[in-house]
Amino acid sequence: MKLLALDSSGLTASVAVLEDDKLTAEYTVNYKKTHSQTLLPMLDAVRKITELDPASLDAIAVAAGPGSFTGLRIGSATAKGLGLALEKPIIPVPTVDALAYQMYGTDKLICPIMDARRSQVYTGLYEFVKNTAQRPAGYDLQIVKKQCATAVSEIIRCCNAYDREVIFLGDGVPVFAQTLADQLTVPYSFAPVHRRLQSAAAVGVYGCVLYRQGIWESAAAHRPEYLRMSQAERERLEREQKAETHDS
Amino acid sequence: MKLLALDSSGLTASVAVLEDDKLTAEYTVNYKKTHSQTLLPMLDAVRKITELDPASLDAIAVAAGPGSFTGLRIGSATAKGLGLALEKPIIPVPTVDALAYQMYGTDKLICPIMDARRSQVYTGLYEFVKNTAQRPAGYDLQIVKKQCATAVSEIIRCCNAYDREVIFLGDGVPVFAQTLADQLTVPYSFAPVHRRLQSAAAVGVYGCVLYRQGIWESAAAHRPEYLRMSQAERERLEREQKAETHDS
Repeated sequence: MKLLALDSSGLTASVAVLEDDKLTAEYTVNYKKTHSQTLLPMLDAVRKITELDPASLDAIAVAAGPGSFTGLRIGSATAKGLGLALEKPIIPVPTVDALAYQMYGTDKLICPIMDARRSQVYTGLYEFVKNTAQRPAGYDLQIVKKQCATAVSEIIRCCNAYDREVIFLGDGVPVFAQTLADQLTVPYSFAPVHRRLQSAAAVGVYGCVLYRQGIWESAAAHRPEYLRMSQAERERLEREQKAETHDS
Repeated sequence: MKLLALDSSGLTASVAVLEDDKLTAEYTVNYKKTHSQTLLPMLDAVRKITELDPASLDAIAVAAGPGSFTGLRIGSATAKGLGLALEKPIIPVPTVDALAYQMYGTDKLICPIMDARRSQVYTGLYEFVKNTAQRPAGYDLQIVKKQCATAVSEIIRCCNAYDREVIFLGDGVPVFAQTLADQLTVPYSFAPVHRRLQSAAAVGVYGCVLYRQGIWESAAAHRPEYLRMSQAERERLEREQKAETHDS
């Protein structure tokens, strides 16, 4: 199976190509948030250096949200455009799940926290569970708490309810480091720098797992999962509600 | 601290730029072994997209061996050339240690195996040990068995001596999968595709750890660590020994 994977849901823009048991290429950049300027040239660089024929791809995996609204639109629009032109299916990979996949093989609870602004985080809780049906045994990502947008104190409360060490990752780590130190009652650590943020390789590897479970959609049907209303939508709703109150 | 990291010790060519707590960029390609043609253009692409001023680097970390002889020479020559021109120190990162760093945070024993041909592997044994002196706690890579060139059956014997699950990674995994299945008596698994081979990000993150321990050298002094004689050296030695026997 040959896969193109994209992640522009957060601070990093990331492109990967995977084939069966091989990561052919990964290109990840976390420098200014100009994904609209960088993602396609990065993809083109990867295509050239690996002599990739886009027609040979089986599917396109994309970090499908939550995340930065603009970032998600850039990633999904790229995946959708390629998928429509090449007639390839899209594997929509939940962003927080793919982040958790960065810590494959750990015995700790995994808690990605992405800064969602307005005192919220995009987060979830995960663990890797041994799958002895595989030869040799592998590890399956299990969702303990599904990805959601919530207050950081709420996910901390959730972590404290388990008597287990937690490993945190995501761009929320530096933002909420003090809150975590103040409110956590369980042991915890942070993922190392090379595992802390999004990576298209993780999206691709976990995307393969999802594809085998039948989780994919047509390029036409694909939409990112924002989890929350965008600022523009929220403000319009507020204006409309205000106008209604004023009218009544 | 700002670091450039390079790894061309094996099948992958990989370049990364790290700054303090941030992986600014990583570019990894595993497609044909033309590192002499790909590594510098990849480095240049990363330099351009991150607007990197090479003079701003504090050091250059390189996977310093063991590995492919040609690959190591390409990586070390690149690091040495840049280090001499920019007057920057080199952090020589043991290749097998950097591979083990791919599995940061696992509670299993880590056993990288690189196919060294001639029925040998470049290998070692590692574990991550909690460092509670850090706030929050982090994990330090501990060397259980130092990197070496040995027979695969020898490292399997070594793994079997510990009553612990082992996670294998490296390009030796597909080569020796059957031997591992036949001879291992402890539970084991393989690293996932996105953690299986070398990565300059791992070289860079572990390189930072080594640098803080004072492990670095001048660009002039830097030499890769082959661990074994090259084929050319071995054949010359054999010719010389044969000539001596013939003469006597």
